[in-house]
Amino acid sequence: MATPLLKSGIEAASQAVEPTSPVARFAADEPLAMDAGVDLAPWQIAYQTAGTLNAARSNAVLVCHALTGDQHVANTHPVTGKPGWWERLVGPGKPVDTDRYFVICANVVGSCMGTTGPASINPATGRAYGLDFPLVTVRDMVRGQAMLLDRLGIKDLFLCIGGSMGGMQVLQWAASYPERVFAAMPIATGARHSAQNIAFHEVGRQAILADPNWHGGRYLDVGTRPAKGLGVARMGAHITYLSEPALHRKFGRRLQDRDAPTFSFDADFQIESYLRHQGITFVERFDANAYLYLTRAMDYFDLAADHGGVLANAFRGTRTRFCIMSFTSDWLFPTADSRAIVHALNAAAAPVAFVEVESDKGHDAFLLDEPAMISAARGFIAAAGRERGL
Amino acid sequence: MATPLLKSGIEAASQAVEPTSPVARFAADEPLAMDAGVDLAPWQIAYQTAGTLNAARSNAVLVCHALTGDQHVANTHPVTGKPGWWERLVGPGKPVDTDRYFVICANVVGSCMGTTGPASINPATGRAYGLDFPLVTVRDMVRGQAMLLDRLGIKDLFLCIGGSMGGMQVLQWAASYPERVFAAMPIATGARHSAQNIAFHEVGRQAILADPNWHGGRYLDVGTRPAKGLGVARMGAHITYLSEPALHRKFGRRLQDRDAPTFSFDADFQIESYLRHQGITFVERFDANAYLYLTRAMDYFDLAADHGGVLANAFRGTRTRFCIMSFTSDWLFPTADSRAIVHALNAAAAPVAFVEVESDKGHDAFLLDEPAMISAARGFIAAAGRERGL
Repeated sequence: MATPLLKSGIEAASQAVEPTSPVARFAADEPLAMDAGVDLAPWQIAYQTAGTLNAARSNAVLVCHALTGDQHVANTHPVTGKPGWWERLVGPGKPVDTDRYFVICANVVGSCMGTTGPASINPATGRAYGLDFPLVTVRDMVRGQAMLLDRLGIKDLFLCIGGSMGGMQVLQWAASYPERVFAAMPIATGARHSAQNIAFHEVGRQAILADPNWHGGRYLDVGTRPAKGLGVARMGAHITYLSEPALHRKFGRRLQDRDAPTFSFDADFQIESYLRHQGITFVERFDANAYLYLTRAMDYFDLAADHGGVLANAFRGTRTRFCIMSFTSDWLFPTADSRAIVHALNAAAAPVAFVEVESDKGHDAFLLDEPAMISAARGFIAAAGRERGL
Repeated sequence: MATPLLKSGIEAASQAVEPTSPVARFAADEPLAMDAGVDLAPWQIAYQTAGTLNAARSNAVLVCHALTGDQHVANTHPVTGKPGWWERLVGPGKPVDTDRYFVICANVVGSCMGTTGPASINPATGRAYGLDFPLVTVRDMVRGQAMLLDRLGIKDLFLCIGGSMGGMQVLQWAASYPERVFAAMPIATGARHSAQNIAFHEVGRQAILADPNWHGGRYLDVGTRPAKGLGVARMGAHITYLSEPALHRKFGRRLQDRDAPTFSFDADFQIESYLRHQGITFVERFDANAYLYLTRAMDYFDLAADHGGVLANAFRGTRTRFCIMSFTSDWLFPTADSRAIVHALNAAAAPVAFVEVESDKGHDAFLLDEPAMISAARGFIAAAGRERGL
């Protein structure tokens, strides 16, 4: 526990990507015990905080990010220059009020924004891990976050909140460390990844693996990047984050800067141009191997399977209060997935509120301007704050 | 009209793929006037027939195939050795009864099973067309089929039937040649391609274009094939042909020949193994450029736009009787798309029956064992046959 808590601007010798966040380093005596059977060491976790930890250390909120998210939840992104990805929900006066709560958001293990992952340098070889990095699970991510909280001197969380893969982490937190989670809010997520979701992920992975610039995962060694494969993966995934009604409303069959189809393979339709843009901007900020690893982590996630096949067993005896939220047009994690969690929590006699938000924005609704989501979150968090005496 | 009707086993000098079907050749004096503004000449169309044309020439049925289908609707496929793709519906004693009707199924223009397409030799260069082949539309396909019928001496069709892209052709037939279609049965289709469907097609195309073995579409010249890109395109498309419930029922999260996940990027899950197999078998039988062209044809299809923005105008004054069919779990062409066609036919005062088949098999249901589809088709076709005096 003697490793200093490095605050920011440090050089990151063990990272391919220069971290832009405070970094907690864990040396060889504090390995991350991974589900793959590997003790990862040394390793580090890059995170951001906002707000102030109170004297009782009782106001900590952990925000868990999604597949391609990162720790920049409420601050301008250092690479893209865009606002934090959840400033609608996290900030002064927002439902996760940084004037009242101490917010932590940590880049997950296996990602590429400063936390150790496949783009990090493998100390055994002096080169990037690539596929030598051990497979990551959602449990590994949460185990790493727990070690970060230990380092920060935070015994328990007032609130653990996140959407999509972030919601999986919230569920895992509630299952792995029930005594450390006062309130939990998993949004637009499921207790396991469906066959269809695994299928979409597999297509994205195969697109990356098909790119000759991927070089068996060793592209950093040879100075290339599988940009086309990763772009195709992102384009396909992006469709699943939206909804048919939203696509129809936003794009329909409208043409892009032209009056008639060109009778070519140009991006005639606005939706094509939009998707290509999504692919291009994504590859500028994300590591292809990290995408492989994190999609796999989501595929492997199956909380019931980890508890004898009965999801309720994951929550028996919990005192955490839950708010589960889904969106009507989310077909990646449909409301039925959230209902399954609610039923399990009911069976475990856990206190649970359930909100299905009417929205045509699809899965990405949790990142967008959805007033019903904001007000439900505000209500649940404020009530939990009162119960916690905050 | 002097060009001989070539029956089978001919050499196909103008084809990269040796046709395995009877072929009708159209010489320079009978070009195909394409929507792209090109007169395609010479060109040919490969087709299969089953049954016997009656003396009145009144019992002809045109079966229109889908995106990756071909003319082998009711006979063993010469490349894959599999049964015809619609033997459930077409054959002796089947709803499209080859003991009573003369069935024609023609490979569409732009495809790769013997009809002229991007893999055919461009007479101007002596090499495969590649992207020099003009963009193809559904109207072009239908125009080509009409020329084939002329050649076969068939003035009008008793029935025009098809699913998916085949259904688009049926709708186009009814709009372009209403006097030549006695009965029409478009299944699992729409009068236009939605933004989401265009989006999925665009991802598939980008996967092909990203494959360095695609060589700007000139892969046949250099003896390569963009197998990986085409495989990824097929994998992604295949998900859209199924449904979440069907995937859950068939595969769920079951592992493939193993008791536990391997913590690797192997095909741990059955759904991954299945999808990879779909990709591999597809590239053995299909040309990548043809895939580009035919997906584009579907994207461009918008029957209302061709008729002043009012779909009913496509059918004004028609005497064709219609049977429209959709499947409850088809999210590629959901029932709403079929309802829009029904409403337009109602507005045009056309006789129309509408059947929504309860099925969890998704879009591909039209190719599968769906007794309700078979019996509805049998009823509609038998009634139309009586009206036709067959």
